[in-house]
Amino acid sequence: MNDSFKDLGLGNSSFEYGQRLINKNGSFNVKKKGRPWLRPYDAYNALISMSWIRFLCLVSASYFVVNLIFAFIYVAVGIDQLSVSEGAFMGNLYEAFFFSSQTITTVGYGRVNPVSFWAGVVSSVESLLGLMGFALITGLIYGRFSRPHARILYSENAIIAPYRDINAFMFRIANKRSSELIEVQVKVVYTYFDHQQKKRVYENLKLERNKVDFLAMSWTIVHPLDEDSPLFKVTKETFEQQNGEFLVLIKGFDDSFSQEVYARSSYKNDEIVWGRKFKMAYGSHKKGMVALWMNLIHDSEEVPLN
Amino acid sequence: MNDSFKDLGLGNSSFEYGQRLINKNGSFNVKKKGRPWLRPYDAYNALISMSWIRFLCLVSASYFVVNLIFAFIYVAVGIDQLSVSEGAFMGNLYEAFFFSSQTITTVGYGRVNPVSFWAGVVSSVESLLGLMGFALITGLIYGRFSRPHARILYSENAIIAPYRDINAFMFRIANKRSSELIEVQVKVVYTYFDHQQKKRVYENLKLERNKVDFLAMSWTIVHPLDEDSPLFKVTKETFEQQNGEFLVLIKGFDDSFSQEVYARSSYKNDEIVWGRKFKMAYGSHKKGMVALWMNLIHDSEEVPLN
Amino acid sequence: MNDSFKDLGLGNSSFEYGQRLINKNGSFNVKKKGRPWLRPYDAYNALISMSWIRFLCLVSASYFVVNLIFAFIYVAVGIDQLSVSEGAFMGNLYEAFFFSSQTITTVGYGRVNPVSFWAGVVSSVESLLGLMGFALITGLIYGRFSRPHARILYSENAIIAPYRDINAFMFRIANKRSSELIEVQVKVVYTYFDHQQKKRVYENLKLERNKVDFLAMSWTIVHPLDEDSPLFKVTKETFEQQNGEFLVLIKGFDDSFSQEVYARSSYKNDEIVWGRKFKMAYGSHKKGMVALWMNLIHDSEEVPLN
Amino acid sequence: MNDSFKDLGLGNSSFEYGQRLINKNGSFNVKKKGRPWLRPYDAYNALISMSWIRFLCLVSASYFVVNLIFAFIYVAVGIDQLSVSEGAFMGNLYEAFFFSSQTITTVGYGRVNPVSFWAGVVSSVESLLGLMGFALITGLIYGRFSRPHARILYSENAIIAPYRDINAFMFRIANKRSSELIEVQVKVVYTYFDHQQKKRVYENLKLERNKVDFLAMSWTIVHPLDEDSPLFKVTKETFEQQNGEFLVLIKGFDDSFSQEVYARSSYKNDEIVWGRKFKMAYGSHKKGMVALWMNLIHDSEEVPLN
Repeated sequence: MNDSFKDLGLGNSSFEYGQRLINKNGSFNVKKKGRPWLRPYDAYNALISMSWIRFLCLVSASYFVVNLIFAFIYVAVGIDQLSVSEGAFMGNLYEAFFFSSQTITTVGYGRVNPVSFWAGVVSSVESLLGLMGFALITGLIYGRFSRPHARILYSENAIIAPYRDINAFMFRIANKRSSELIEVQVKVVYTYFDHQQKKRVYENLKLERNKVDFLAMSWTIVHPLDEDSPLFKVTKETFEQQNGEFLVLIKGFDDSFSQEVYARSSYKNDEIVWGRKFKMAYGSHKKGMVALWMNLIHDSEEVPLN
Repeated sequence: MNDSFKDLGLGNSSFEYGQRLINKNGSFNVKKKGRPWLRPYDAYNALISMSWIRFLCLVSASYFVVNLIFAFIYVAVGIDQLSVSEGAFMGNLYEAFFFSSQTITTVGYGRVNPVSFWAGVVSSVESLLGLMGFALITGLIYGRFSRPHARILYSENAIIAPYRDINAFMFRIANKRSSELIEVQVKVVYTYFDHQQKKRVYENLKLERNKVDFLAMSWTIVHPLDEDSPLFKVTKETFEQQNGEFLVLIKGFDDSFSQEVYARSSYKNDEIVWGRKFKMAYGSHKKGMVALWMNLIHDSEEVPLN
Repeated sequence: MNDSFKDLGLGNSSFEYGQRLINKNGSFNVKKKGRPWLRPYDAYNALISMSWIRFLCLVSASYFVVNLIFAFIYVAVGIDQLSVSEGAFMGNLYEAFFFSSQTITTVGYGRVNPVSFWAGVVSSVESLLGLMGFALITGLIYGRFSRPHARILYSENAIIAPYRDINAFMFRIANKRSSELIEVQVKVVYTYFDHQQKKRVYENLKLERNKVDFLAMSWTIVHPLDEDSPLFKVTKETFEQQNGEFLVLIKGFDDSFSQEVYARSSYKNDEIVWGRKFKMAYGSHKKGMVALWMNLIHDSEEVPLN
Repeated sequence: MNDSFKDLGLGNSSFEYGQRLINKNGSFNVKKKGRPWLRPYDAYNALISMSWIRFLCLVSASYFVVNLIFAFIYVAVGIDQLSVSEGAFMGNLYEAFFFSSQTITTVGYGRVNPVSFWAGVVSSVESLLGLMGFALITGLIYGRFSRPHARILYSENAIIAPYRDINAFMFRIANKRSSELIEVQVKVVYTYFDHQQKKRVYENLKLERNKVDFLAMSWTIVHPLDEDSPLFKVTKETFEQQNGEFLVLIKGFDDSFSQEVYARSSYKNDEIVWGRKFKMAYGSHKKGMVALWMNLIHDSEEVPLN
């Protein structure tokens, strides 16, 4: 009964995936299917996590389309209900379109004006819709900008390095942001597909330490390959045969967001190099400060294994 | 003294309810009475949890009423204090109403203008009120939209299925959202009304596992009907006689809201089917991904019980 | 060394206060002195916790004063830099004042217009200031409105009631809001001034239960006066002589705010009645629901003590 | 293996820093180098934590530059596309600049108006950009203002004072804000550079108490110099030779922000005075309240050591 506690909720499915379970960016290789096409409860998640380019295109397109719709309404209601105080008349739809954009953004220059009842009603409704629509858009812009999530820099490769009188699995992380990460916890799980038993195996790896008070420096996470390790006496060959994956789960408190943040990543066996150790990534800085070289996080050098 | 810890705070009341304790949507079947009609401290909760349709109707109605009130004030102050630079005059109240809506939304076209002291004062106050009122409304719109709450898909029925060499109570859940749920905990409580003792009994059910690291896949929650279970050796008949209810309490961290979320639901005895097991809801997807079929979460097939 | 853990951080000061430690509304009877008059770091706390009336007065007064200042600036720059397209001229300061209010709220009707360089500069700056100022004000309005804090209804009196074969100290709470409170914890501390030792004593009281999963109903918090209680064998007379205070600390998760909330209150010895028990505050409601009568939370009836 | 758990994540680097590890304001003396110059993921942190003066200058400069850019665009599109209804014409760029500022803030007086197609398009785009840009700016203003972080007042010096029949290391803290800090935890770590072993040593100090329920009063944090202390039998001379630093880590729940807050500080050996004890910082206030004198937190008086 105990072994069922080890699958993290990812299942011991009876088929092997070709891909990694957790992508480098922390997303899962699971595709939800059979859901309704329209999912209002997913709108927030979609709008907050899409790229900025897509988001801005979506906003611009919506702005254009909504203005166009209202332009048609103004024309339908009667363009003569919009008085134009001066300047050349640009053509019905143009005037209506620009009047609509001035109404929805509440700029309201006033060269074009609603002068009859129905134009008054439509513009009054449009300005209300504009305020409410821009409440969503501007809220999302700030929400996206201030969204709390960790930005962890992982060393490109994990390494198998000598450690005391044995070897150890190691990788290195640092905080990409300038903000402080506090009470950082890490969990590493080794998973592979067992072809005999035809099921996926998950092994929680014991770490030299799994918590730091601050992630102000770089942190080398170490799993010693001792007798307790599921990888005890593993060789490069047997390891590559297993085609395993190291899942990395990180949790901490971000000082600038004042919130708990989570991060995930993984190392596949082709991202693990044997017989190397990490080079030191920090050194002395001017005025007695410590310099942490973020670009050196990935650097390692050859070393004979135990 | 220990047994008093089991009632979840819902009480061991000495009468039987006709209804379930927790509704499918997670609300309680408790009606608070004898409260003042006007409860400012409940306004936020009411406005954030009412349906979008009701909310938008409420906003529109308020917008109309407030504009009407200000229209009357402008007429009372003297409609001649509003100069109309061009176009046909629409009648006092109409002009005042549209001027009010242009002021409160800060559109301010300027065809109608305050030209005397009191109209200036009123419009100056109205634009301040407008900004403050729309602060509430637009804040609520974004607050409603970004409100963190879990959207759990529960299997329509719970089942009694064979499990190892005994039977077990099971139901299945999945995350409806595209966002990730992390560190998900579940608690299942069985409650029924004991007619001998004339009080409600609550039994915390031991689960095969009560925590997963991720709810990326579906999760079948299993309570084995072993000797430790309050439902040990229960039959379909004795079970239906008890008219019990399984309360389901879920807690997790939502990755897109960056917050703890809670969900509740329940299964009444008529939602429990005997002698079935859940069909597999996931399979292989293109490019080595796993496909989770949300519409198959509910599917089960007949199976003989132990 | 252990006893120092009991003072909650309120100190064992060597003089007796005339007043209670914690007021009914949860604030402390501590006055911070010797602080600088201007404390920018306290501005948020002050603005978020003052009454709505004071807040709205403050906003209105600021709006008036800022407009007045800008009106003087426009007059100083030269009122002829503001063209008035139509209507009677209201006098320099009036026009400047209303123009300022139309600029700061971004209404901008446009009857009065900046037509020269310096008026353009000032109005351009003012509209920027307006946007930034109203960012604070509207943010605060929504922040105040949506501020997460518990609204607990405490029974007016605590009681000493028979409990099993001894007596117990009891009081009753309910959630005033319509939202759900989840995982509610309570801590009760008895404190009095020991005249012999000349110091304040704090005693953590053992409760029949200190946690409920939901506060959907009323909850009677019970401290049995058994051998372990610091109030064992206390009589009404000795109790009143001690002039003690029961501090009540409550913590829970509010479902509509999606946040942890805290509440505090206290009972002084003149708010404790001996030989009463609480009347039932809930009953059967239509359609099998439970009715919780909030106005009956305080009700108790006489009963002989053990 | 155990000793590696003691470094807080700050490393046992093999060189000695000239400076303290944690500055008085809680920042670390670590400089991240080798990062890309443009780090969009750091923008929020930078904008939320820079000083108000810098922030306001940045906003003003951006406002000026963006308006200038749009002014040039309007001139390029053709200044004759902006009709000027009245008043003296101020020169192309001036008019275009002020028109731009009236568009981007959505004031829109309307004296200057777009009358042709391209001016209409540009102003329509500009007002959309304005709304989105000010969403960021106003969000940041309120975010900065309401940002949850602790404001702890630390006594200027830590002291070595007599404590029971030994001595103790002590310092005193209070909450600078008027809000309440709840469930406050403190951790003190002593660190120095060991010249023999050429590595930094971290020692977690055992405190008389490390948690209070409230920080409503001042709190004297006490580490007794008993046999268990790494500083047992230390003298002023040996202590100064070690050139150590006391790191102070504080955590609590702020009642007005409704959030967890963190604070950090440190005491270097030149900020520690021997043979003094803190003077009482509170006293009786009118109406039985307690007065806490914030300006007396630092005050101590001479006392012979044990």
